[in-house]
Amino acid sequence: MTMKSFNPPVRTLMGPGPSDVHPRILEALSRPTIGHLDPVFVGMMDEIKALLQYAFKTENALTMPVSAPGSAGMETCFANLVEPGDKVIVCQNGVFGGRMKENVERCGGTPVMVQDEWGKAVDPHKVEDALKANPDACILAFVQAETSTGAQSDVKTLVDLAHRHDCLTIVDAVTSLGGTELRVDDWHVDAIYSGTQKCLSCAPGISPVSFNERALQKLKGRSTKVQSWFMDLNLVTAYWGGGQQRTYHHTAPVNALYGLHEALLMLREEGLENAWERHRKNHLALRAGLETLGMGFIVAEADRLPQLNAVSIPEGLDDAVVRSRLLNEYNLEIGAGLGTLAGKVWRIGLMGHASRAENILLCVGALEAVLSGLGARVDTGNALAEVQRSLHG
Amino acid sequence: MTMKSFNPPVRTLMGPGPSDVHPRILEALSRPTIGHLDPVFVGMMDEIKALLQYAFKTENALTMPVSAPGSAGMETCFANLVEPGDKVIVCQNGVFGGRMKENVERCGGTPVMVQDEWGKAVDPHKVEDALKANPDACILAFVQAETSTGAQSDVKTLVDLAHRHDCLTIVDAVTSLGGTELRVDDWHVDAIYSGTQKCLSCAPGISPVSFNERALQKLKGRSTKVQSWFMDLNLVTAYWGGGQQRTYHHTAPVNALYGLHEALLMLREEGLENAWERHRKNHLALRAGLETLGMGFIVAEADRLPQLNAVSIPEGLDDAVVRSRLLNEYNLEIGAGLGTLAGKVWRIGLMGHASRAENILLCVGALEAVLSGLGARVDTGNALAEVQRSLHG
Repeated sequence: MTMKSFNPPVRTLMGPGPSDVHPRILEALSRPTIGHLDPVFVGMMDEIKALLQYAFKTENALTMPVSAPGSAGMETCFANLVEPGDKVIVCQNGVFGGRMKENVERCGGTPVMVQDEWGKAVDPHKVEDALKANPDACILAFVQAETSTGAQSDVKTLVDLAHRHDCLTIVDAVTSLGGTELRVDDWHVDAIYSGTQKCLSCAPGISPVSFNERALQKLKGRSTKVQSWFMDLNLVTAYWGGGQQRTYHHTAPVNALYGLHEALLMLREEGLENAWERHRKNHLALRAGLETLGMGFIVAEADRLPQLNAVSIPEGLDDAVVRSRLLNEYNLEIGAGLGTLAGKVWRIGLMGHASRAENILLCVGALEAVLSGLGARVDTGNALAEVQRSLHG
Repeated sequence: MTMKSFNPPVRTLMGPGPSDVHPRILEALSRPTIGHLDPVFVGMMDEIKALLQYAFKTENALTMPVSAPGSAGMETCFANLVEPGDKVIVCQNGVFGGRMKENVERCGGTPVMVQDEWGKAVDPHKVEDALKANPDACILAFVQAETSTGAQSDVKTLVDLAHRHDCLTIVDAVTSLGGTELRVDDWHVDAIYSGTQKCLSCAPGISPVSFNERALQKLKGRSTKVQSWFMDLNLVTAYWGGGQQRTYHHTAPVNALYGLHEALLMLREEGLENAWERHRKNHLALRAGLETLGMGFIVAEADRLPQLNAVSIPEGLDDAVVRSRLLNEYNLEIGAGLGTLAGKVWRIGLMGHASRAENILLCVGALEAVLSGLGARVDTGNALAEVQRSLHG
C-alpha cells in the first residue's frame, strides 16, 4: 500500500460531533509533549479541574476528564455507581438511553426502562410512576441532550423526583456542556459525564465527569470492586486527586489535555452564559433559514436543543446523496439520522466554534443550492434573507 | 485563579514514557479535525490498520487502536477473553503483571500467579510447572517488556509452552512495540496490546491491539457478554471492521489518530528492523556512559531491554533531588522507580524518537554534572568519551 502523511480536507463540521475545532485548540494539541508526572503538567491538571468546575457550575472535588471518549465517561459513571443487583431506572428517548441500559446490564444491575418517543423530552410523569412502582430502585439515569434526536429534557425536575424517591442520578451531558443551560450544583445532579467534541469544540477523545458527595458515598460504600480497573475512580482519583503527590495510574493523554485546557479557557473567556446565549441565537437563525426552505423540526419547540437541530428530510430526496454532495461540493458535514430515524432526518449541529453566523449561511445556502439542484421543491430565494433578519434584525 | 494558555517547557523525555514526540507527529495532531465517519477519515483508518499490522508483524484482521491509553488496551484484552470462572496464569516480574492480576479478578476470573523477582525475565520453567499444575487454565498472560524494571521476557518460548497446554496468550507489548524484536504471527501470539507513547514516539492516549483467529474464537464463543460496553470488541470492530459501511460505536479520537498514523508511517519509513537495531546500538552507548560513571544495571545483560534502562541509584544520593535538578536545570526527564524499586533505581528510557545520540550525550553529561555537583563519588571525565567510542568507534 502506498501511503503518505494524512492531510485531511478542511471541512465545516455541522453534524452531531465532532464539531469544528478552533485553530487555537488545534495548535494547543501540537505543543511539545511533557511527562504526565511533570510538576508543570500537574499544575495544568489542577487548572483543567478548576475550569471543568466552572463549565459544569459545580464545586464537586471529583471533577476531572476521563482519558477516553464520552462512551467511556458514561461507563465510568455506571461502572462506579451500579453494583450487581442494583435496580436502575433508565429513561430512553433516543439512542443513548439504550446505551445506558446496556451499561446497567453489563454492571450486573437491573434496568427499569421508561420509554418516550424519539424526539420527545423525557416525561417526568412516567418517571414518577416508575419511581413509585420501584421503591427499591437506587439510581435514575437519563440524557439531558439527546444527540440522536435533538430533544432536551428537564434535568432539575427529574433530579428532584429522583431525590424524593431516594435515588441517585446519572446524567448524560455529552451534547449539552457549554452549549445549553446546565447547573450541576444548583440542580443537585449526583453524577454527570460529557464529551469534548461537542460544544467545547475540542478534538474528540476525552470525557469530563463530575461526582458529588452523595455519589462518592455510594462509591465508597460498595461491597464489590468496580469491575473496570481503568475506570475505577478510587484509583483514577489518586492521580487526579490534587497536590503534587500523584500516584501513577495510567499515562494521561498529555496533548489531548493541552487541547481541553485551551478549549475550557476559551469558554471561560467568552463566559458560560454568553456561550449558551450564542448557541440559542444562532439556532434561531438556522431555524429561520431551514423553515423558509420548507424543512420541519422533529422536536417540539419547547424541547429543542439549540445545538442539535434534527429536521425531516424533504419528501423524495435521497439522504445519502444530499449529504455526500454537501460534503464533496462544499466540504460541509451534516449528520445522518441514527437508529429508527436513519434516512428520515438530518441532524445539523451548531456546537461550540461551529455555532457562528458564517456556518449558518453556508449550511442554509448549501442546502438551498443542492436541494434545488436535485429538483426538490424548496422555497429558494428567501432563506438567506431570513437568516440575516434573525441574526441582525 | 488566573489562567492563560498552557505553554509547556521543552523537555527531553527519557523516562519510562511518554517519550519525545517527533515534530512531524506533533504537527499531525494539529491538522483540521474531520468527522469520524467521513469517507476520507475511514480511508485513513484502513491505513492505520495496515501500518499496525506492519509494526506488529501480523496479518491479523483484528488489528486496531483502542481509543484510550495502554491500560485500557490491557483491559480490552482481558475483558474480551476472560469469562467469569476462567483460570488465568499470570506472570509477575514487575508492576504490570500485578495489574494483569487485577484485571483477571475484576473480570470474574481466577488468577494463578507465577512470581519472578523484579528485574528478572519470566522463568519458563516456573510457567511450565504452573501450566502442568493447572490443566484447567485457559489463558497465559505475561509482559514482554516490563516497563517497571527494564527486563525482557522470551515471548516465543512462553507462547509455545502455553499452546502446548491449550492456553491462549495475552502479551503486554506496551514498551516493546517498535523498539525491540516482536513477531506476532511467527510467534503465534493470540492477543497483544501496546501503547503509543513509548517506542512509537506518539502522544499518549491510544492503545494498539491485535487478536488472532484463535482469540477471536474465544471471544465469539463467550456465553456471557463482555462486561465493558466501551471495550467490547464485538461492537468496536463494527466501526473498525473495514469497508465504507462503518457502524457508529463511539466517536474516534480523530486528531490522536492523525498522530498515530504519522508515527507509524515514520516507523515504516525507517524500517522496523532498523528501528530495533537503532534502539540496540543506542542502548549500548548509554550503557557505556552510565557504567563509566559507576552505575550498574539491575537487569542481567541477556534480559535487558534496550529502550528501558534501569540502573541503581548510587549510594548516598537523594533520588528526588537528582531528578528534579535534571528536570529544572537541563529540562531532562528520567524516570523514578516504581513499587518496590521506588527510591532505588532510575529508569532511563531510550524510546522511539528519544533514542538518538544527542539524547545519550545529554543524559550522561547531565548525570555527570549533577552527580559530581552533589559531591557523589562518580568517575568524571571519561563517560562521554565512552559514549562517543560506543557510537562511532
